[in-house]
Amino acid sequence: MTQSIKVGIIGVSGYTGLELLKLLLSHPIFELCYVANTQGQAVIKDIHQMLYKTRFADLNVQVASAKIAAEQCEVIFLALPHKSAMEMTREILAYAAQVGKSIKIIDLSADYRLSAKHYEANYCPHIDKENLAHAIYGLPEYNRALIKNAALVANPGCYPTATLLGLLPFVPYINAREHVFIDAKSGVSGAGRSFSQNTHFSHINENLFSYSPLAHRHQIEIIEKCHTIGKAALKIHFVPHLLPITRGMLVSVFATLHKPLSQQEAQQILYEAYKNEPFVRICAQPVSIAHTAGSHFCDIFVATQDNALFISSSIDNLLRGASSQALMNANIMCGLDEGLGIPHIPYGLF
Amino acid sequence: MTQSIKVGIIGVSGYTGLELLKLLLSHPIFELCYVANTQGQAVIKDIHQMLYKTRFADLNVQVASAKIAAEQCEVIFLALPHKSAMEMTREILAYAAQVGKSIKIIDLSADYRLSAKHYEANYCPHIDKENLAHAIYGLPEYNRALIKNAALVANPGCYPTATLLGLLPFVPYINAREHVFIDAKSGVSGAGRSFSQNTHFSHINENLFSYSPLAHRHQIEIIEKCHTIGKAALKIHFVPHLLPITRGMLVSVFATLHKPLSQQEAQQILYEAYKNEPFVRICAQPVSIAHTAGSHFCDIFVATQDNALFISSSIDNLLRGASSQALMNANIMCGLDEGLGIPHIPYGLF
Amino acid sequence: MTQSIKVGIIGVSGYTGLELLKLLLSHPIFELCYVANTQGQAVIKDIHQMLYKTRFADLNVQVASAKIAAEQCEVIFLALPHKSAMEMTREILAYAAQVGKSIKIIDLSADYRLSAKHYEANYCPHIDKENLAHAIYGLPEYNRALIKNAALVANPGCYPTATLLGLLPFVPYINAREHVFIDAKSGVSGAGRSFSQNTHFSHINENLFSYSPLAHRHQIEIIEKCHTIGKAALKIHFVPHLLPITRGMLVSVFATLHKPLSQQEAQQILYEAYKNEPFVRICAQPVSIAHTAGSHFCDIFVATQDNALFISSSIDNLLRGASSQALMNANIMCGLDEGLGIPHIPYGLF
Amino acid sequence: MTQSIKVGIIGVSGYTGLELLKLLLSHPIFELCYVANTQGQAVIKDIHQMLYKTRFADLNVQVASAKIAAEQCEVIFLALPHKSAMEMTREILAYAAQVGKSIKIIDLSADYRLSAKHYEANYCPHIDKENLAHAIYGLPEYNRALIKNAALVANPGCYPTATLLGLLPFVPYINAREHVFIDAKSGVSGAGRSFSQNTHFSHINENLFSYSPLAHRHQIEIIEKCHTIGKAALKIHFVPHLLPITRGMLVSVFATLHKPLSQQEAQQILYEAYKNEPFVRICAQPVSIAHTAGSHFCDIFVATQDNALFISSSIDNLLRGASSQALMNANIMCGLDEGLGIPHIPYGLF
Repeated sequence: MTQSIKVGIIGVSGYTGLELLKLLLSHPIFELCYVANTQGQAVIKDIHQMLYKTRFADLNVQVASAKIAAEQCEVIFLALPHKSAMEMTREILAYAAQVGKSIKIIDLSADYRLSAKHYEANYCPHIDKENLAHAIYGLPEYNRALIKNAALVANPGCYPTATLLGLLPFVPYINAREHVFIDAKSGVSGAGRSFSQNTHFSHINENLFSYSPLAHRHQIEIIEKCHTIGKAALKIHFVPHLLPITRGMLVSVFATLHKPLSQQEAQQILYEAYKNEPFVRICAQPVSIAHTAGSHFCDIFVATQDNALFISSSIDNLLRGASSQALMNANIMCGLDEGLGIPHIPYGLF
Repeated sequence: MTQSIKVGIIGVSGYTGLELLKLLLSHPIFELCYVANTQGQAVIKDIHQMLYKTRFADLNVQVASAKIAAEQCEVIFLALPHKSAMEMTREILAYAAQVGKSIKIIDLSADYRLSAKHYEANYCPHIDKENLAHAIYGLPEYNRALIKNAALVANPGCYPTATLLGLLPFVPYINAREHVFIDAKSGVSGAGRSFSQNTHFSHINENLFSYSPLAHRHQIEIIEKCHTIGKAALKIHFVPHLLPITRGMLVSVFATLHKPLSQQEAQQILYEAYKNEPFVRICAQPVSIAHTAGSHFCDIFVATQDNALFISSSIDNLLRGASSQALMNANIMCGLDEGLGIPHIPYGLF
Repeated sequence: MTQSIKVGIIGVSGYTGLELLKLLLSHPIFELCYVANTQGQAVIKDIHQMLYKTRFADLNVQVASAKIAAEQCEVIFLALPHKSAMEMTREILAYAAQVGKSIKIIDLSADYRLSAKHYEANYCPHIDKENLAHAIYGLPEYNRALIKNAALVANPGCYPTATLLGLLPFVPYINAREHVFIDAKSGVSGAGRSFSQNTHFSHINENLFSYSPLAHRHQIEIIEKCHTIGKAALKIHFVPHLLPITRGMLVSVFATLHKPLSQQEAQQILYEAYKNEPFVRICAQPVSIAHTAGSHFCDIFVATQDNALFISSSIDNLLRGASSQALMNANIMCGLDEGLGIPHIPYGLF
Repeated sequence: MTQSIKVGIIGVSGYTGLELLKLLLSHPIFELCYVANTQGQAVIKDIHQMLYKTRFADLNVQVASAKIAAEQCEVIFLALPHKSAMEMTREILAYAAQVGKSIKIIDLSADYRLSAKHYEANYCPHIDKENLAHAIYGLPEYNRALIKNAALVANPGCYPTATLLGLLPFVPYINAREHVFIDAKSGVSGAGRSFSQNTHFSHINENLFSYSPLAHRHQIEIIEKCHTIGKAALKIHFVPHLLPITRGMLVSVFATLHKPLSQQEAQQILYEAYKNEPFVRICAQPVSIAHTAGSHFCDIFVATQDNALFISSSIDNLLRGASSQALMNANIMCGLDEGLGIPHIPYGLF
């Protein structure tokens, strides 16, 4: 019997914190021994009522303390807003260094995803450049070996995850002098649990609109990772939309190829790229949100017309786009079977 | 290590067949070794595309044969339309008797739920009264001991499940001379996978309507089980509605009490009734579909006003109302831990 | 050519204010010359962006002033929260009395719907009992003659409108010693434009739940009007639910009849009651929200079982349940054709 | 008082037929005197139940006859499938020529939208090339003068309408050597009233997927009209998606400009193009389906990044994308005020 590993979640009140909790309810090795938020003490079922009468129902939620988390956990998931996340990370890793304890952190915020230069141009001053220098971008299909040895993994953004998994295999074939356009659509859970115009039912229902067109912060994340992982400087333009559904994400990528590819050739490129990947599915028919929502799958479809390329990829924004990816990163960091506790059964009905 | 048990599903193309498949994907003991439908041979991922690249993806779906099912399986789930189900059951059990093999059947149709008299008045002539005489109504919280020894379990209807779990504890307190009114609302998946007015998006979306008011066949199932389980002859009037959601069910029961009860007293009756039941949750606040959809939980809320009683109960119509209840019945019939493979994590986000 | 009549709306920022604006965009007689809210000056298209480039787009929204409203308008619609409404009404009518001007008010709040006793037991102290004594309950089908001569009309609540139109014709047939149960379902627009748990998309979508069961303030409004209009003291118990749709309302009423009625007899009672009413439709099939949303229609269906009665009625909660009813009341008060500008074309597609 | 004009609808059973009916309910000049379908006689309220008790409720629906239509009507709307439409048109216009009567036809199908060459490559052999040669593409903002004198107007497709209104003003600025990508999203009503996988609630709800990517027949319509109206040969690639909403459409156009434009410059191009158009609105914020659904408005937003161009346009697919555009064309053909009976009040609430 494998020994359990003590894990903690800081930032348990939001949707990604909740999804992490749900995943850990079924995980055979990770033992949840510390949960905290920044708002004050509570019992978990009072924050997430649906956990009532589950195994975690009476778990105490503490006020987040880097020191206590570091003392009690071997692995810590941070589901905090950006800026709070790097403050917490810096403190935890400083403590760990001081007492000589090895602690692994998976940060779900943007704080360790970008180079300092890109981060500061798009977010705010970076206060932990030391750890940033060693952070690994946690896209398992591309950074598995680095994640394995990392102490700090930056969990990718939801839009970048869906986009990069579709786009990266084609980077060598894309004409970088021409624009790459991304038209992305996300379920409303991406807008979080807080109350706003963009989470108001009568605003979202029977509606669709873009937000932050060509100005969303995930644009730079996609550009930078195409550069660092894909070795290409692409002119990427990104437009996200809010969909009248709770969860799931569909991303269209449009690009120009160096030379025409048939749909079969394009599909073959995907098959080659992901032939050993259990959680990426190459689809001969257009992909659907309903086939991935509830699971860790990323489904990808490709079509071409002359040298025009269309890629459509689908993920669950809260799972593959956040919490199940964080868990997969943690599995890898701990040397476990990557798929342990990773959801593979979509909610959908067809 | 417990030995695996060979199970089969006949009628795998519909929603309840799919949900059974999903549940068996995660079950530690049941080994799915036979799947069939009545339409013709196929590979399962071509019927349910979302199973692509899962453990079951390449499973062969056979044309249903009682004999082959009986040869290959120890436990058989029937997810067939009524009438087909009793034909198949009769044949399987006849074969089993003939060769002296013990086979357990969980029938998800209406065929073995009612007395022959009520069945024939509401469905069609019954062609297997012999097995009907021994069939057990599979509501675990009330028939656990009988289910344990049954060869044939009739899985309850979705509306009766939600209604009876809320209503049965109050039967001794209800004035049977006055009417009991049930106003029920179901997600559209209850209308099945076939194409009809009642599954057409533009008909259902942004809409709500009742169907078969006071004339739905689940009315007699509720009345009969209040009588056989609750020992009361209630004048029950049942009105179902179709909700513009995919899955989940909320049921309101209105009744008149012999004498006034406070809300606390009424709640206490529920706590007593279900204090040892892991999958029934008594809620101090009105229950929500989103707290049960995706799980086997039945959530129940009660309120009173003088001697007027209001019960609100919520279940997932396809899980607690069909497939997870069938699985729980199978667990009990096989002497396994009841909760093995039973989903306890709702889809919802609050 | 009929001369125009000057009208004003106070409380233009909410949904009922918006719906009034939309209706007045098409009204041939009422000339909108004063719009105000309580939050500060604005241009209407900045509050309701969808009015951009319509006839009203550049209308100035003023800070509400009873005096200016009274000076500029002959008819005033108040779409304010309760309490604010009676403060404004008192001030407007005092000014009108002082200068000898006839001003007609249609108040969409609860402030003038109930007797002082019931109001104070369910809302707050009433500060304008003098005008309350003369206010008319604006349910046109039942109070037309009184509305015609009223200076102050209390526009009915949405739930009471749908309930009373279905229930009132049956009052003489109902056994008042037994309970009347009402199970009502409203679109989310009923919860208003403000941000709350009950307007959060991920909370409402794919969900259904009751709120304030047996404790909602519309219960007393229904009881009182059954008494004053229907001359019966009924034991009414009311449970509302929030539906995952934007607008529309469906109400189930369950009651016990003195003696059995066939469905045909029950339907005939409805036909008789509404044979001259253009905006009440008696339906032989169960009614649908989609058949009334967008219109002023109230659709009613009735079914019976022995002496059990089921009534299902459908309205648009913002139109028949608020703004188009207010407009119809204003038409009647001004001696115009009742149907002027009243929407008769549902949004639906079947 | 203007005299009434006799109009007919052939193909009244579908959604566009219904929407035409609804519009004509409020039209001050057009008198609906002939409605027909191809399925058999009926009364209109039995086909579209929501018309019950409206002015049109008891209208007889006849079996379509070109001769009778031609005898009774001055203006005929054809809401038929392609191919049936040209058969009917040919017959009506032949009859009209024979008896020397002037009849105006607005055809909502694809039959007269394209050159014979493009039509036959994408649909089927064209059987009425004579009338095709004189048919006018009914996009009022661009073909007003031609429509005024036309006997036969081809009403544009829904996707082409939304796309062309956004794209045409920019054609002179777009680099035609680079690809133009269109990512479009339509409500499910676009899939019609028939039953299919793409109208099944549980398939569409909480889902999104593309269909016919790079292979939809509206692609050639957009390309051809950019050529004939915009005088440019653009390499257009079109991907439509089905949205989980009933009606409305949002279209993203991505293109490469000859040289960079600021967002202000780009917006100015739109303002100039549509400064005299009452039904096109240029928006400074991203456009929403909820701002146009229910109305004839086309809302357009534009953003740029270097020489990358993003246009987002929103229409109601059944109104501006079909029926209200047909009515506007009819108004123009008859020399009436263009806006007569054209809906300008969106359904939305913000």
